[in-house]
Amino acid sequence: MTEELEREREAVRQANAAFYAAFQSLDTERMRAVWAQSDAATVVHPGWRPLAGIGPVMESWRRIFEGATLMQFTVTGVQVHFDSETTARVLCLENLTTVLDGAVSEGRVQATNVFVKAGGRWLLVHHHGSPVM
Amino acid sequence: MTEELEREREAVRQANAAFYAAFQSLDTERMRAVWAQSDAATVVHPGWRPLAGIGPVMESWRRIFEGATLMQFTVTGVQVHFDSETTARVLCLENLTTVLDGAVSEGRVQATNVFVKAGGRWLLVHHHGSPVM
Repeated sequence: MTEELEREREAVRQANAAFYAAFQSLDTERMRAVWAQSDAATVVHPGWRPLAGIGPVMESWRRIFEGATLMQFTVTGVQVHFDSETTARVLCLENLTTVLDGAVSEGRVQATNVFVKAGGRWLLVHHHGSPVM
Repeated sequence: MTEELEREREAVRQANAAFYAAFQSLDTERMRAVWAQSDAATVVHPGWRPLAGIGPVMESWRRIFEGATLMQFTVTGVQVHFDSETTARVLCLENLTTVLDGAVSEGRVQATNVFVKAGGRWLLVHHHGSPVM
């Protein structure tokens, strides 16, 4: 039971890492692959209004990736909590260097990432990122 | 099935409203009653580091309530999404008027609230609030 839980926890950590790898790749198709293709997919980007549905969510990534020429993440403080057998909640701190519209900035964003397990895979269904002061 | 879903959706909306009623009451015991009493309880207050475990979560509410003399919420844009039969995710916008340490401020906070159903009740297990620019 504990072994099973550890395996699932590791699988969620890997799904979370895959999300940041996709984010860093600035590749919308790679980003699409880590998300649940669902009407219930939601995202809150720092300072944005919430978006719901995989269409608007992917459109937001397209817009973010369009303007960015580099996004480098170091993800720290990763916590994994299970809310059901098929629902996991990850809290983590994104330490990032961004080149957006030609300007370099360093920043920290606190994230909540919610994953659901479907067809044996953990898929992102919600990302909420907020600036850390 | 659809009727059942609508009933659950309404129960989650009520649990979310009860959270904001408790927030507004500045009463820690009332706030404690809406939370899952769990090590997995987590909170990200705007600009704070994440806190995990019901003890640290409740300590944070005590500190917030200590300094505040008024918190008035109008909650808008409520979205309810189910991630499993016993896991719900609410996105909403908190339009609030605060008197904190004698100063009045108006602000908007985008929230993600995660609820789990236990013993027939929907209990808050995660709150993430971030400033809206």
